[in-house]
Amino acid sequence: MKYLLERIHSLRNDMYPSRKRGVAGRVTLRRDPVVYGGPNPPPLLDLEQVDAYRQQGYIVLENVFSEREVQVFQKELETLKEDNDIRSSDELITELESEEVRSVFRIHERSSLFRKLSRDNRISNIARYILDDEVYIHQSRANYKPGFRGKDFYWHSDFETWHVEDGMPRMRALSVSVILTESRNYNGPLMLIPKSHHHYIGCDGETPEGHYLSSLKKQELGIPSDDHLRRLTSEGGIKSVTGKPGSLVVFDCNLMHGSSSNISPYPRSNLFFVFNALSNKVEDPFCSLPPRPEYICTRKSISVI
Amino acid sequence: MKYLLERIHSLRNDMYPSRKRGVAGRVTLRRDPVVYGGPNPPPLLDLEQVDAYRQQGYIVLENVFSEREVQVFQKELETLKEDNDIRSSDELITELESEEVRSVFRIHERSSLFRKLSRDNRISNIARYILDDEVYIHQSRANYKPGFRGKDFYWHSDFETWHVEDGMPRMRALSVSVILTESRNYNGPLMLIPKSHHHYIGCDGETPEGHYLSSLKKQELGIPSDDHLRRLTSEGGIKSVTGKPGSLVVFDCNLMHGSSSNISPYPRSNLFFVFNALSNKVEDPFCSLPPRPEYICTRKSISVI
Repeated sequence: MKYLLERIHSLRNDMYPSRKRGVAGRVTLRRDPVVYGGPNPPPLLDLEQVDAYRQQGYIVLENVFSEREVQVFQKELETLKEDNDIRSSDELITELESEEVRSVFRIHERSSLFRKLSRDNRISNIARYILDDEVYIHQSRANYKPGFRGKDFYWHSDFETWHVEDGMPRMRALSVSVILTESRNYNGPLMLIPKSHHHYIGCDGETPEGHYLSSLKKQELGIPSDDHLRRLTSEGGIKSVTGKPGSLVVFDCNLMHGSSSNISPYPRSNLFFVFNALSNKVEDPFCSLPPRPEYICTRKSISVI
Repeated sequence: MKYLLERIHSLRNDMYPSRKRGVAGRVTLRRDPVVYGGPNPPPLLDLEQVDAYRQQGYIVLENVFSEREVQVFQKELETLKEDNDIRSSDELITELESEEVRSVFRIHERSSLFRKLSRDNRISNIARYILDDEVYIHQSRANYKPGFRGKDFYWHSDFETWHVEDGMPRMRALSVSVILTESRNYNGPLMLIPKSHHHYIGCDGETPEGHYLSSLKKQELGIPSDDHLRRLTSEGGIKSVTGKPGSLVVFDCNLMHGSSSNISPYPRSNLFFVFNALSNKVEDPFCSLPPRPEYICTRKSISVI
């Protein structure tokens, strides 16, 4: 059965092969645009920022949400964490070595406030413009990144995982992170490798069944080699994203990113929404495994924003 | 036997109790000066810097060693790492989850170059001035802090360990770190809590035998509570020490410090010399355990600089 699935998959056209025989370390030039939209960006963006996004793979927009709004989001974060229904589900992820909450998934369904936020024009207009299509939420989550014992998250391209494990065909998706507590140099900020989204790096290893159960705590597959990381950083450097609560980070699905541990007392909480173009809906995974659950990858309950 | 030792130790005058019954969380005001020296600091220091050291607990001195000197130190670092005699000894410490070298101890004895460096006036004059005494090396090491998989080091006061496990009686010691590869915000820089050296925090837990074998990889005892860390950082903040190769960081033995993980490709190598005042020589440990080995704590081979 597994062999048969592998044969079928090998016949399928895989534009971005990874975790397959013979492709580890293969670098593919990106085959898709970064910005799909035209010369008229939405209110929060100007063409200079669009150009920076195209070249660097990300933009930071400050003061998008007011202090008052951020307070309401923070309160909702606490509510979700304490919700018994969520706590007893798989959708709440704890830290690897402690019971502290690392993430809560599917917040655009779990919380009416965050559902509304995922549809807020300040965010969704950007997604619609950059992807130039109708969009839906591929994944959403609240990241608590607690202080003291917040673990690091190793370098990865989200797209590599979404492609291999979820069957997202092309690079036509982006992530929006809403900063909820000040992101500083020393509380495990999001670190990006600018320009890394122009290349796709085939990774080593075969994906084991149920991989998502551990990979949400610690990324161990779908990670590029030391040499590739050296090459990427020698070209683009490393950008630690610092910023005040209420700021937005928008970044391309294939931008290499990670974060260091957070031993400071200050949590680095944020909300995370992944927008995918409707024309880029997920298909069968590009590995020989059953699809990941709905709370990690929207498949059945696609709802256009 | 253990009971007897405990009784004897409880009779001894312990100025800075920690890891003992009833002292966890006890905050003691520092009972010793920070700067012992007078109004005439050595060439590399002015009185403003001395004052900053007294108040903040540290100073950073840039460009103390030339590029050429740093290159020679770096080469020696590689030599030590490859030395078979060192590799087969306990004095080389690997990372917790890999075989990568984290530290090599006793470099002031192992390497004639680093022996000379430990006696270099640019460093030792500062130690002699601040401690106002003859000085010797209590501990020395090379920290490799490799890229990609360099783990974090949790908050601790060195003095707490040196007092409890080594029997260093008073706060009359300091550390000098020589930066050998650029220390950046994103490669796990040394993080200090300014002003934290004015208080001593009693820690929880009893020290198990052979604790040093694991604590050199991962600090799990002698760490302050979350509440204490919150209090310390709310007063002093957190200082990430960035700097070019050849810079010096001088910090007080009781300054709370730690570092985040380093997932960047850039190692953060440095040399580390601990100077203790001769009048403050180590005695019996303040816990009921045999002393730690000579490579971690100079006890028998004290040699005045």
